Amino acid sequence: MLTRVKSAVAGFMGGIMSGGSSGGGGNPGAEMPLKFPYMRPEFLGLSPDEIECSADHIARPILILKETRRLPWATGYAEVINAGKSALNEDQACCEVVVARKRPMSYCPPSTPSKTPTAKRRNSLPNGEGLGLRMEHSKLGEDAEGLVFHYWALFDGHAGSGAAVVAARLLQHHIACQLQAVIEILRNLASPPPTVMGEEPDMNPYLQGNTPGPHRALTRAASLRGATGAPGSPCSTPPPPRFFTEKKIQHESLVIGAIENAFKEMDAQIEREKQVYNVTGGCTALTVVYLLGKLYVGNAGDSRAIIIRNNEIIPVSTEFTPESERQRLQFLGFMQPHLLGNEFTHLEFPRRVQRKEVGKRMLYRDFTMNGWAYKTIEDEDLKFPLIYGEGKKARVLATIGVTRGLGDHDLKVHDSNIYIKPFLSCCPEVKVYNLTQYEHGADDVLVMGTDGLWDVLSNQEVAEAVTTFLANCDPDDLHRYTMAAQDLVMRARGVLRDRGWRITNERLGSGDDISVFIIPLMYGNRQP
Amino acid sequence: MLTRVKSAVAGFMGGIMSGGSSGGGGNPGAEMPLKFPYMRPEFLGLSPDEIECSADHIARPILILKETRRLPWATGYAEVINAGKSALNEDQACCEVVVARKRPMSYCPPSTPSKTPTAKRRNSLPNGEGLGLRMEHSKLGEDAEGLVFHYWALFDGHAGSGAAVVAARLLQHHIACQLQAVIEILRNLASPPPTVMGEEPDMNPYLQGNTPGPHRALTRAASLRGATGAPGSPCSTPPPPRFFTEKKIQHESLVIGAIENAFKEMDAQIEREKQVYNVTGGCTALTVVYLLGKLYVGNAGDSRAIIIRNNEIIPVSTEFTPESERQRLQFLGFMQPHLLGNEFTHLEFPRRVQRKEVGKRMLYRDFTMNGWAYKTIEDEDLKFPLIYGEGKKARVLATIGVTRGLGDHDLKVHDSNIYIKPFLSCCPEVKVYNLTQYEHGADDVLVMGTDGLWDVLSNQEVAEAVTTFLANCDPDDLHRYTMAAQDLVMRARGVLRDRGWRITNERLGSGDDISVFIIPLMYGNRQP
Repeated sequence: MLTRVKSAVAGFMGGIMSGGSSGGGGNPGAEMPLKFPYMRPEFLGLSPDEIECSADHIARPILILKETRRLPWATGYAEVINAGKSALNEDQACCEVVVARKRPMSYCPPSTPSKTPTAKRRNSLPNGEGLGLRMEHSKLGEDAEGLVFHYWALFDGHAGSGAAVVAARLLQHHIACQLQAVIEILRNLASPPPTVMGEEPDMNPYLQGNTPGPHRALTRAASLRGATGAPGSPCSTPPPPRFFTEKKIQHESLVIGAIENAFKEMDAQIEREKQVYNVTGGCTALTVVYLLGKLYVGNAGDSRAIIIRNNEIIPVSTEFTPESERQRLQFLGFMQPHLLGNEFTHLEFPRRVQRKEVGKRMLYRDFTMNGWAYKTIEDEDLKFPLIYGEGKKARVLATIGVTRGLGDHDLKVHDSNIYIKPFLSCCPEVKVYNLTQYEHGADDVLVMGTDGLWDVLSNQEVAEAVTTFLANCDPDDLHRYTMAAQDLVMRARGVLRDRGWRITNERLGSGDDISVFIIPLMYGNRQP
Repeated sequence: MLTRVKSAVAGFMGGIMSGGSSGGGGNPGAEMPLKFPYMRPEFLGLSPDEIECSADHIARPILILKETRRLPWATGYAEVINAGKSALNEDQACCEVVVARKRPMSYCPPSTPSKTPTAKRRNSLPNGEGLGLRMEHSKLGEDAEGLVFHYWALFDGHAGSGAAVVAARLLQHHIACQLQAVIEILRNLASPPPTVMGEEPDMNPYLQGNTPGPHRALTRAASLRGATGAPGSPCSTPPPPRFFTEKKIQHESLVIGAIENAFKEMDAQIEREKQVYNVTGGCTALTVVYLLGKLYVGNAGDSRAIIIRNNEIIPVSTEFTPESERQRLQFLGFMQPHLLGNEFTHLEFPRRVQRKEVGKRMLYRDFTMNGWAYKTIEDEDLKFPLIYGEGKKARVLATIGVTRGLGDHDLKVHDSNIYIKPFLSCCPEVKVYNLTQYEHGADDVLVMGTDGLWDVLSNQEVAEAVTTFLANCDPDDLHRYTMAAQDLVMRARGVLRDRGWRITNERLGSGDDISVFIIPLMYGNRQP
């Protein structure tokens, strides 16, 4: 069966099947070994044959967690492959309970910020296999030696599955690594994180006001915006001595910083390992970390997570696309025009400019604008716009439709030497949801999905589908969340009819890979 | 009386009184003439004597609109001077009905985006006096020849009142100028704005798909993120010809673009005129434009506007401060390290780093982070942080506490050659409120205030005060909005007691200049 499908698919897809990569503009590492083989999520427990069958672009079977297998918190999961745009399912998923153990610092060097725009990270980072991190359940978020966190992640690959596979295997270990450096601090919730590691906050010499260095600058500063002394004193005694207060950092901020730096280290590792392994393409990353009573949702890309609580929708991520990040990207193109390689303009126009339109007045906007205005078209404006297209068709440098994620280090504009990577960010936005602040019922869930889900179903439709589905399930059936995930994937994929996938109201179903986690929130403070 | 006050204030303020400028680091234009003399808002109708008396830092008289004077829509206004931080009230206000008339293009050249980061604008712009714009009321937002808009603005100056005075006189004319270029388009709400001026949208040759140039790039683009053809077709007919659709721009976007570019032109005019006039300091700018049924709230700085409708608070601006714009500024410092002059670091620390802490691990964050992590302190980290301090004391380059506004072209870090201006943006964020979508009662208002108001009163407190005050007024008394504004200023200033200004609950009152507009919304579609 698979053979027939394969040849049928290969027939209409041209050369795409052969490399297991969609697009790509050449793969410089093709002769090198894979870091990890292509896979489906480990927790699905699929045999190699099952994995092959799962890639049937005609049947598009929906894969779900087997009833005999269980994920932490009775998490539900379902996925389906695309309708033919790539040979393999480029989505990847991971769900684990991870223990970060206190270790000597040298073992897991923490992230260091670049000193100059051109500096490269030189840290030698672990690749996960040797870390000795092991799965373990814990109710309190800590065991004797370490800190336990729950971890769910979706990766949506493009131009090959390499980066997504590597990230699905390793990102959690980078998070553990970053957390290792602050385990003691996180376990001691009674004291705020010290500014200098190993020192008590009240050892801060600045509170005594004996400051060396450009103190003068601060003195000058006060005159500009009315910060001198206390407001409201017209001609009273001189203002109190101005000592330098210290910003108080919350424990929560250390977890956010750890996740942010873990994404950066994951990306740096992919870049390094491309020297010796074949790591194709790039991927978005959406992660949920549960630690010490809080959910940390980190997102770099166009996947999405929402919480459905008591029939209310709480978005817990935002998407990063050429449209949502237009101003950041245009600003970069404006500041560093060499990144545009003399082929692109940082200005946006409603469509391509034609040579015969030079001298006419056309709508445009630059990085400072959300509105539009007219400008006289010049030769310069005939270059291709850095951001072009609308909605799902919007592209950066005519190449990529998502602006954050991991990998893509070799990605160039077709037939040029213009790299895309400088415009992409591997930094997630991390949002925090305090699980202990609410009572959660059996139908209160967090839904994570790749864009294949959200392209065709709105938050409202997803929430209604999940709520209705769960209401009709036995509340004690731990498999209900997987069944609900399966239902969602089915609603987004639709059925094959009249040569196309159709969902309700004759709308087009998603032809993309679709992956969905449904995480019940009631288990946050008790193990199922 | 004023003499006594002046000498008392001068006594405790040192040299600040003399120049009419607080701080400033030298005023290179001090020997040049003023563009406009210091003033209070024209609509207050104050005599020179009254203006002098208004600057009494001890009495701090609250100035209000006289009962015999009326602003459009029966707008209320009140203001008070600071408690001594500057000799003059550095807030300025403006309220006018402006007619933008269609004129030859050459008369009022529209804004042109810079082509390279170093390019300067070369447009010669009008300075307002010669524009022939006149005040006029109109119900429909258009007269025979032009377009009528209502305009309210607050400017909060720093390091001198020059920029604020100039902006209060001229910004509305720049907005009129920008709108002039699109009058015909805005009057024709039935057709969307044409991409090319003077051409009908359906003349777009791209809809036929005959595209020259880097078409190939788009073709390549499609392979990367699943944009090929319609989703959901596994092996159907080839996708329909991919023609280049045109972004449809709304009329509203042209007004937003006009306001955005007007701010930029105002800033460019200040820069130019500093060659021949003494224009001190800089200022924030908060503007409200009412045009064709919609309010456009443009904000560059830390003033604020809220709408109070049916006791509900609707924020219609956000503030731009070193804290809210930290990541933009750190990113700029990272990309263009020369702007930091080898004295500042783009990294943020919870407090200054000391030399003896080199080698220790300290909390930091960079432009990619919202969380915090530890890094090993190096010599480089001993530099002063680009962003430093918390809340009202946060500063950029140890100098300025607001990150958007007009002017400040000469502002440098004290005793250095490091300019602040590259880190400041003159671009407003423009939010739109559709006045025709709601029924507004007599107590539904838009409140605009400089930070002197919002530093001591929350949105909630302001809304409660205004709602309570208006409920106790005769609804037919057109002076009620000015009385409510006076009440707000009084609540924020407080009373002088025990050598300090105190408000309710013994809190400190604002020692800053305070200016407030209260705009009733019911008059949006009918003239009072």
